[in-house]
Amino acid sequence: MKIWEKNIRKVVPYVPGEQPKGEKLIKLNTNENPYPPAPGVQRALQEMDCDAFRKYPDPAATILVEALAREHSVKPEQIFVGVGSDDVLAMAFLTFFNSDKPLLFPDVTYSFYKVWADLFQIPYETPKLDEEFRIRIEDYQRENGGIIFPNPNAPTGLAEPLSFVEEMLKSNPDSIVIVDEAYVDFGGESAIALLEQYENLLVVQTFSKSRSMAGIRIGYAIGSPSLIRALNDVKYSYNSYTMNLPSQILGAEALKDRAYFEASTHKIIQTRERAKLRLKELGFVFPDSSANFIFARHPQVSAEELFLALKEKQIYVRYFKQERLSEYLRITIGTDEEMEQFFAFLEAYLAQK
Amino acid sequence: MKIWEKNIRKVVPYVPGEQPKGEKLIKLNTNENPYPPAPGVQRALQEMDCDAFRKYPDPAATILVEALAREHSVKPEQIFVGVGSDDVLAMAFLTFFNSDKPLLFPDVTYSFYKVWADLFQIPYETPKLDEEFRIRIEDYQRENGGIIFPNPNAPTGLAEPLSFVEEMLKSNPDSIVIVDEAYVDFGGESAIALLEQYENLLVVQTFSKSRSMAGIRIGYAIGSPSLIRALNDVKYSYNSYTMNLPSQILGAEALKDRAYFEASTHKIIQTRERAKLRLKELGFVFPDSSANFIFARHPQVSAEELFLALKEKQIYVRYFKQERLSEYLRITIGTDEEMEQFFAFLEAYLAQK
Repeated sequence: MKIWEKNIRKVVPYVPGEQPKGEKLIKLNTNENPYPPAPGVQRALQEMDCDAFRKYPDPAATILVEALAREHSVKPEQIFVGVGSDDVLAMAFLTFFNSDKPLLFPDVTYSFYKVWADLFQIPYETPKLDEEFRIRIEDYQRENGGIIFPNPNAPTGLAEPLSFVEEMLKSNPDSIVIVDEAYVDFGGESAIALLEQYENLLVVQTFSKSRSMAGIRIGYAIGSPSLIRALNDVKYSYNSYTMNLPSQILGAEALKDRAYFEASTHKIIQTRERAKLRLKELGFVFPDSSANFIFARHPQVSAEELFLALKEKQIYVRYFKQERLSEYLRITIGTDEEMEQFFAFLEAYLAQK
Repeated sequence: MKIWEKNIRKVVPYVPGEQPKGEKLIKLNTNENPYPPAPGVQRALQEMDCDAFRKYPDPAATILVEALAREHSVKPEQIFVGVGSDDVLAMAFLTFFNSDKPLLFPDVTYSFYKVWADLFQIPYETPKLDEEFRIRIEDYQRENGGIIFPNPNAPTGLAEPLSFVEEMLKSNPDSIVIVDEAYVDFGGESAIALLEQYENLLVVQTFSKSRSMAGIRIGYAIGSPSLIRALNDVKYSYNSYTMNLPSQILGAEALKDRAYFEASTHKIIQTRERAKLRLKELGFVFPDSSANFIFARHPQVSAEELFLALKEKQIYVRYFKQERLSEYLRITIGTDEEMEQFFAFLEAYLAQK
């Protein structure tokens, strides 16, 4: 080993999920939205003048921040924007979790929490979800250096009611509590309603799921002005100009069309509810999802084998080869046509078992 | 102070530079390119189908990485891309500078180096440039935890020859040496030529200056596959999907038009050389810039007063109120018309002094 190699930061490299390419494939593996962004986004794209690209973008992303403030009926100084909610969450870990006491998050949850905690050398503990994959509030009623959980949780899809989030906050007046609401628009209750009472609450949302804009990378946090100021201070020490001009323009544009947003999330919810009935008929069991995916297992079928059989037919779902999860598949809700093909395959597969 | 506030990371908040808005203003303050991006960029923008936005972008930004590899005649595994060179540099600080020995960079240089060192708690020392604003190589021939310098340097505009960079590398076989080449296309010599011999060299470039795409946020590093792998490992632990789809497409597109790139950088260089003559005639003194700006002072004129007088006429240049720099103005090279107006003002201003 060369001497300079000794100073290289060692991390367990995260391997990004499969992004298969092809015309005919059915992609139900990364919780993307099956519908395009609001029509205004295409229009705004067409009208964009690339001469504006030669200048630095507004570091404060004012047009997007103001549109988000209007959307959520909060003040602009309560909004922090980033390059996807991963950027927002990573920045929040770096900014807020600087305690010797452990950060707490569930054992079964978004896998990146552990990665950021390791990267920034944050001590953490991961209390176990109960048998039904529910968060046990008593595990979070103890000394800690911060709390984060998704609501709805991933990959289970289970949502907790607002009363649960409030109990979490009441039990933890000395900690910053982050609620990661990536999937909230598909049936969860947002903790934004609690922001006025709890200055230590940060709510994180994204354009990647319900807004159909994963490819544009926009995430945001909503919180008290003091939390948002702290996030911005750290962000400006890291990279002042993260959000490029197209993201700012297209993000603000997407927020204008509430009718489209509601119609497309409603369509996904309806497809999901129908999918639940079909899965049940086929003998699958699953937590009752409030997200744009269902986390299901079949008592008579190996999840891994089914995953591989689906993949062979160009139908991609997500399989986690790890403790507590290895009997399950996470199935993103696609269009009705995609789900039809998925179920047609399942029926044939189960019939020959 | 609330208990949770104690765990918030304290940073000296960086305040981003002024981005004045208005039709008539002349913006010579942030080293932006006065010409639009290559015409293909507008075309690619018009042809983009926003349906693709619903999916996550390629985390490896393959189309852009491959285009950059072709552009610089290196292998794709020698290229790391980020959201502007600030993102690339911040990631490089986090990845490579984990020593107890001090990181070394000049006292007069890009102001963000200090900010990142503070953010990541990296010890550093800043050897003084000599009287002529030159880097003294002997200051870097000592034990250190890494070296970084821009070439050409900012805000001086001074370029060092390749032989200087090679001497730096020869003197520091045990350190990672980063050469920040944000301005290299305006007359510097790139250290890319040294990559084959020095595995500890990382060269960083950007689309924000010579490619007229500051608003799109693309920066990149070129180095040995082992350095690039280490950067990617850390990057994937931080945020897998940083580069949005428009950046990947438009960045790759911009690289296709070498003739446009050469013509527009050539135009800026010619304008700069004429500006040097005019400035000299008017009694200004300045280091001989190889960048898209000139760092000039006038022995009889207060830089701060001139800065304010220019600003009043809607002509923006950059003034640094700090040691060694407070007698200077950093003037970005604009179009010939913009420079004409700038000089017309200067002549009138100096005539009445």
